[in-house]
Amino acid sequence: ARSINLAVIPGDGIGREVVTQGLKVLSAVLPQDVKLETKEYDLGARRWHATGETLPDAELEALRSHDAILLGAIGDPSVPSGVLERGLLLKLRFAFDHYVNLRPSKLFPHTASPLAGDPEIDFVVVREGTEGPYVGNGGSLRTGTPAEVATEVSLNTAHGVERVVRDAYERAAARPRKKLTLVHKNNVLVYAGHLWKNIFDRVGEEYPQVTTDYLHVDAATIFLVNDPARFDVIVTDNLFGDILTDLAAAITGGIGLAASGNINPSGAFPSMFEPVHGSAPDIAGTGKADPTATILSVALLLDHLGHRAEAARIEEAVTADLAERAGAPARTTDEIGDALAVRVAD
Amino acid sequence: ARSINLAVIPGDGIGREVVTQGLKVLSAVLPQDVKLETKEYDLGARRWHATGETLPDAELEALRSHDAILLGAIGDPSVPSGVLERGLLLKLRFAFDHYVNLRPSKLFPHTASPLAGDPEIDFVVVREGTEGPYVGNGGSLRTGTPAEVATEVSLNTAHGVERVVRDAYERAAARPRKKLTLVHKNNVLVYAGHLWKNIFDRVGEEYPQVTTDYLHVDAATIFLVNDPARFDVIVTDNLFGDILTDLAAAITGGIGLAASGNINPSGAFPSMFEPVHGSAPDIAGTGKADPTATILSVALLLDHLGHRAEAARIEEAVTADLAERAGAPARTTDEIGDALAVRVAD
Ligand SMILES: CC(C)[C@H](C(=O)O)[C@@H](O)C(=O)O
Ligand SMILES: CC(C)[C@H](C(=O)O)[C@@H](O)C(=O)O
Repeated sequence: ARSINLAVIPGDGIGREVVTQGLKVLSAVLPQDVKLETKEYDLGARRWHATGETLPDAELEALRSHDAILLGAIGDPSVPSGVLERGLLLKLRFAFDHYVNLRPSKLFPHTASPLAGDPEIDFVVVREGTEGPYVGNGGSLRTGTPAEVATEVSLNTAHGVERVVRDAYERAAARPRKKLTLVHKNNVLVYAGHLWKNIFDRVGEEYPQVTTDYLHVDAATIFLVNDPARFDVIVTDNLFGDILTDLAAAITGGIGLAASGNINPSGAFPSMFEPVHGSAPDIAGTGKADPTATILSVALLLDHLGHRAEAARIEEAVTADLAERAGAPARTTDEIGDALAVRVAD
Repeated sequence: ARSINLAVIPGDGIGREVVTQGLKVLSAVLPQDVKLETKEYDLGARRWHATGETLPDAELEALRSHDAILLGAIGDPSVPSGVLERGLLLKLRFAFDHYVNLRPSKLFPHTASPLAGDPEIDFVVVREGTEGPYVGNGGSLRTGTPAEVATEVSLNTAHGVERVVRDAYERAAARPRKKLTLVHKNNVLVYAGHLWKNIFDRVGEEYPQVTTDYLHVDAATIFLVNDPARFDVIVTDNLFGDILTDLAAAITGGIGLAASGNINPSGAFPSMFEPVHGSAPDIAGTGKADPTATILSVALLLDHLGHRAEAARIEEAVTADLAERAGAPARTTDEIGDALAVRVAD
């Protein structure tokens, strides 16, 4: 597209700082003739404290008209846990049917992994984004009494599982190693687990070139630590994906580098790109936040909008920059953004 | 107690091999005047293939009369996933109200961790064992069709959460560092999460000497990899505990060393001790299985039955044996059992 109409939600804590750098690099990488328009949305903890609102319908409607959304981080200790997560972040993922939550995990050269021997790590997690234990279906009876009962219902549909499994097969088929691992817990969560496994096997018949594998989620954490090179593409449920992608971020050198895309592949709704990390209120305003995860999320955004060359330029710039970071004194949020903006503009 | 009436369930795969070594060390460590009686129960894949039974009522009733149960491993690829897990292993945990699933995690000296720098690791996970997503409450509608819907219900009660949280505070209060971390996902699973958090905070008022901490499960995986020394006692839900304890086993040198106790602290039912690892059918019969996790589970069993000195002797023997293993040629299942039996008898 020759223009990008971007919605920007800085959000809370370090959100604004990292988004500023993301936009800096985005402007620097785009060709002159691509018009970038951005509109900022004031959503998050400040807004909730001021008005009690998390995501009013009018703003949800307005967000819908954009080509994509760039989000910094949502959440603050001053807001009861769950209010902003459910009322804003997850509301966006569900309302815009972001059924592919895409989280690449790569150990960049010259980046230290906490794992001994710096193993090869280069895989992608396709996390389901609109079902499972995240649907918000549950309740509490006799709340706060010794007789309280609280439930959480994981909802899983053939419709929802098949589309994300198919997306994962497509991604696996397009990669050199062509390997897809399903992660679930079908020996305990037998209803949801068998639905996933049956669809995974059935759709797999259409992709004979893709090697498949199944792991229980507990075993998957062991392999992520002992043999991460075995993974190419992982497809999994919303909650297991949440857990595995934080672990994946840790083994690839930390949450400062983990990018994500909440994608609606049909294009009916804008997709949303955000770093995997949270709002980190403890370091907000100190210049210590690493904007690289947001900048890599901008690369995913560009890729999604068809600007493949620009996306690749950002990845290359990050690779080169990380090589220079090894052993060098720490730079500020702003300095990292500047350095990457210069590199992508070259 | 001056006698131990033990039920033994070897189970599948390497189950029998490791249980044999566990019993060898148990016999060697017990004082002459403690009478050990064992009764073996033929449960698992073979039995299911032969009779279609997983755990008949009569055997459940018979198991109930024992002082404790030692279990090897359950599960085989020839049995549909979930049949033995739900029909045997989880049935035992639920029927005998094993609400404390105790899983110590310790990096023994001279044991290599996959984490760079071999950090200090010495914590205990108190995993809830009778509730949460493990209750088997769910179903599938229009199974196998494109309109299938599958649900899994996580059930959580104040009764169930309070008793396990209290047990965890007691354990934390008895340890030098006196630190307890609750792990949940209360920003998404708000009903269950708030139940856990409220009870955790309320019971905590009775333990002012215990320092407390809360982590979302995704963040907990990051800390397990980047800063495992921060953990002392972790209390968590059944599913999160399943995931975190496999990860904990990985970072402490592998699943070959991870012991567990399924404990009913009231003593109304026999507690059950088992290695965290599975039946590993790929190495069954090869002599490659490491019986150490089972032998350490025997130590937990002895501790539970009040034989504290004998439990400590096993831990010391394992510590000494692991120091000798470093760099030495691999030994067989049997050789490791023999070496530990000799050490504890000294
Ligand atoms: C903030 C939270 C609701 C969110 C999630 O659980 O999905 C976050 O952990 C993530 O992974 O994007
Ligand atoms: C075999 C399986 C049912 C079991 C569980 O999920 O609890 C195992 O993974 C464990 O951790 O003991």
